[in-house]
Amino acid sequence: MSELRQNPATKKWVIIAKERAKRPHEYLSKKKNLLNEKQPYSEKCPFCPGNEDKLPEEGIILEKKKNGKQWSVRVVPNKFPALTAYGNVERNEIENLFLSMEGVGCHEVIIETPIHNTTIGLFPKEDVEDTISAYRERYLSFSKDKRFKIVIIFKNHGEGAGTSLDHPHSQLIATPIVPQYTRHRIHEAVDYYDDWGKCVYCSIIEAEKKLKERIVLETEHFIAFVPFAAALPFEITVIPKRHAATFGEINDKEITDLAGILHNVLGKLYRKLNNPDYNYVIHTAPFNDKGEDYYHWHIEIFPRLTKVAGFEMGSGIYINTSIPKECASFLRE
Amino acid sequence: MSELRQNPATKKWVIIAKERAKRPHEYLSKKKNLLNEKQPYSEKCPFCPGNEDKLPEEGIILEKKKNGKQWSVRVVPNKFPALTAYGNVERNEIENLFLSMEGVGCHEVIIETPIHNTTIGLFPKEDVEDTISAYRERYLSFSKDKRFKIVIIFKNHGEGAGTSLDHPHSQLIATPIVPQYTRHRIHEAVDYYDDWGKCVYCSIIEAEKKLKERIVLETEHFIAFVPFAAALPFEITVIPKRHAATFGEINDKEITDLAGILHNVLGKLYRKLNNPDYNYVIHTAPFNDKGEDYYHWHIEIFPRLTKVAGFEMGSGIYINTSIPKECASFLRE
Repeated sequence: MSELRQNPATKKWVIIAKERAKRPHEYLSKKKNLLNEKQPYSEKCPFCPGNEDKLPEEGIILEKKKNGKQWSVRVVPNKFPALTAYGNVERNEIENLFLSMEGVGCHEVIIETPIHNTTIGLFPKEDVEDTISAYRERYLSFSKDKRFKIVIIFKNHGEGAGTSLDHPHSQLIATPIVPQYTRHRIHEAVDYYDDWGKCVYCSIIEAEKKLKERIVLETEHFIAFVPFAAALPFEITVIPKRHAATFGEINDKEITDLAGILHNVLGKLYRKLNNPDYNYVIHTAPFNDKGEDYYHWHIEIFPRLTKVAGFEMGSGIYINTSIPKECASFLRE
Repeated sequence: MSELRQNPATKKWVIIAKERAKRPHEYLSKKKNLLNEKQPYSEKCPFCPGNEDKLPEEGIILEKKKNGKQWSVRVVPNKFPALTAYGNVERNEIENLFLSMEGVGCHEVIIETPIHNTTIGLFPKEDVEDTISAYRERYLSFSKDKRFKIVIIFKNHGEGAGTSLDHPHSQLIATPIVPQYTRHRIHEAVDYYDDWGKCVYCSIIEAEKKLKERIVLETEHFIAFVPFAAALPFEITVIPKRHAATFGEINDKEITDLAGILHNVLGKLYRKLNNPDYNYVIHTAPFNDKGEDYYHWHIEIFPRLTKVAGFEMGSGIYINTSIPKECASFLRE
C-alpha cells in the first residue's frame, strides 16, 4: 500500500508509491555518461578560455582569480536572456482582465570553472566556493535595484534537465515580481510561525537531526537530507543550520562550508548514480524579507530520473517511486 | 524585449520570450512519429482485445459497446495503482511535524478504443464520446464515496509525456485530499468572484471570444484557445461555455460536443506538429463544490515540446518561447 505524505513547509502532499518503489540502485543511469570521455577544452564552447569572442557583447560582468593566475569563475550575460535590464515595471491591462508588463529583469550565467569536461562534484571544493561567492555578489548587487524583488539562482545539469551547453555553469534571473511559488511557501511558513512561534524550516532541521535516517551529510553549518515528502527519487534539500530568510545573508564561513557540502553531495550523485541529469535551485525570501523570522533559505536538488506526467501537472501531487530514507542511506554509505 | 503576462485565473506570471520565440512551424517534430507505421493489434499489449489475461485480476470495471458489437471503451484498474481503495483517511503525525496517511484512493485506466495504433485525433468522434461518457460515469461513482474529495482525469500521450504504453488510454485517480493546485486555483477564483461578482473563467471566455486571435476552435458548447499567459508552446484550454464548477455536471449534449472539439483539436496537433507528446488534464472543483458560482471546470492540453528546467521548477514562472496568438493562428488555419 502506498502512503501519502505532506511536506510540512509547503503543505504539498506526495504519494510515496511503496509497492511500485524501485530500490536505489535501480535508478543508476544505464549509459555510462561520464565526463572524462569528453575533452577539457572545446573550440565551439563560448565558456571555454580563449573563446571570449563568442560571449555576448556586454562581456564579463565579474571574474574571480586564484593566486592572480587564471580565472576560476566568471559571470557573463545570458546570450538569450529571458528578461532584460531596461524598461519599466508598469502594468498594462487588456479587456479589464489580462495583466502584462515589460520583461524587465536580469539573466546572467555563472561559469563555474574554465574546464569544459567537469562538474561541481568533481572539481576542487575551493572552486565551488568561488561560484557561491559569485552568487552572493550578484544577489547583493541586484538587491539594490528597486525594480527587482528576488533573484532565482539555479543550475541545469545535463540535457534532460534543460541545458544545451556542457560547460559547467549555473544561472540567475532577477525578476520584477515575487513568483507565486515563493508567495505560497512564505504564506505557509508565516502560518506555521504564527501557530508555533518558530520557523518551520528550523523545526524540520531539528526533526531530521533527531531522526537521522534521511540525512545524507551534515557539516558544521549545513545539513543535506532527503525530505520526508520528497517528490522525486533522490531529491535533496541542503539547508543552513543558522536561521536566515534570504540567501544574501550567507556569511563567509557558511560559503566555505556550503561549497564543501555541495561538492560532496553532488559528487555522490555523480558517482553513485552515473552522472544523472539534475537541477538545483536556491529558494530565498524576496529581498525585502531580509532578517525575517518565518522563512529560511535553502537549496533543493532535483535529479531528473523520472518523467513528470499528467497527474503531476494537473494536481501538483507527485508520485515518488522511491523511499526517501532508502535514497538517503544509499547516498550516505 | 520579452513580456511578462499573468494568467487572470491562476495569477501565475509567465515570461513570453518574444526575441527567443520560435515560429510555430519550428516546433514540428523532426522524426515522423506517425501511428500508421505501427500495427492495429499488439500481442504484448494488455489493452488489445483478446489479451484480457494480461489485465489486473479485478477485471473490467466498465465497458461500452457500439450496436451490441465489439466494445468501444473499457475501464480497468491500473495494474500498478498509485492509490488503492482500502484503508482509512486518518492522519498520522511524526515528531509533531510530519503528516502522513494511508494511500487511499483509486487509480483506473480508460482504454479509449480497441485499436492499438490510433489516437483520439484520428478515431471517429463517436468513440471519443464513449470515452468522455466513461469519465463522467466513473466521476459520478467516486463522488459518492465520502473518503474521496476529487477525481483527477488525465492523459499521457507519448513517451515524453510519461507513458510506457502505446495503446490509447487515459487515467483517473480519486484522491482523499484536495490537491494544493486545486485549492490555489479556487482561492484565486473566489477572490475574483468576491471582487467582480462573476466567475473569472466566464470572463476569460467572454474576452477570448471578443478578441478572437487566440481561439483555435469554437463549437456550440465549448471553446478551445491558447491562453493569454500560456506557459508552454501550443498549450490549449478547452472550456464549456455553460458555467459549471465540477466536471460531473457535464450533460449529454456537452459530451457529444466535447468529443467533437477534442477530436478536432487533438487531430490538429497530430497533423500539424507530427504527433507531439502531450498531456491533458481535466481541472474540476472538488465534489462538494458542485453548483458553486466561482469555479468553472476545464481541460488543459500541454504539448511536451520543450523541457522544464531549474528556473521553472524553482519559481513556477515558465519561459514560453512561442507567441500564443501565433500558435492559435497556426492551428486554426
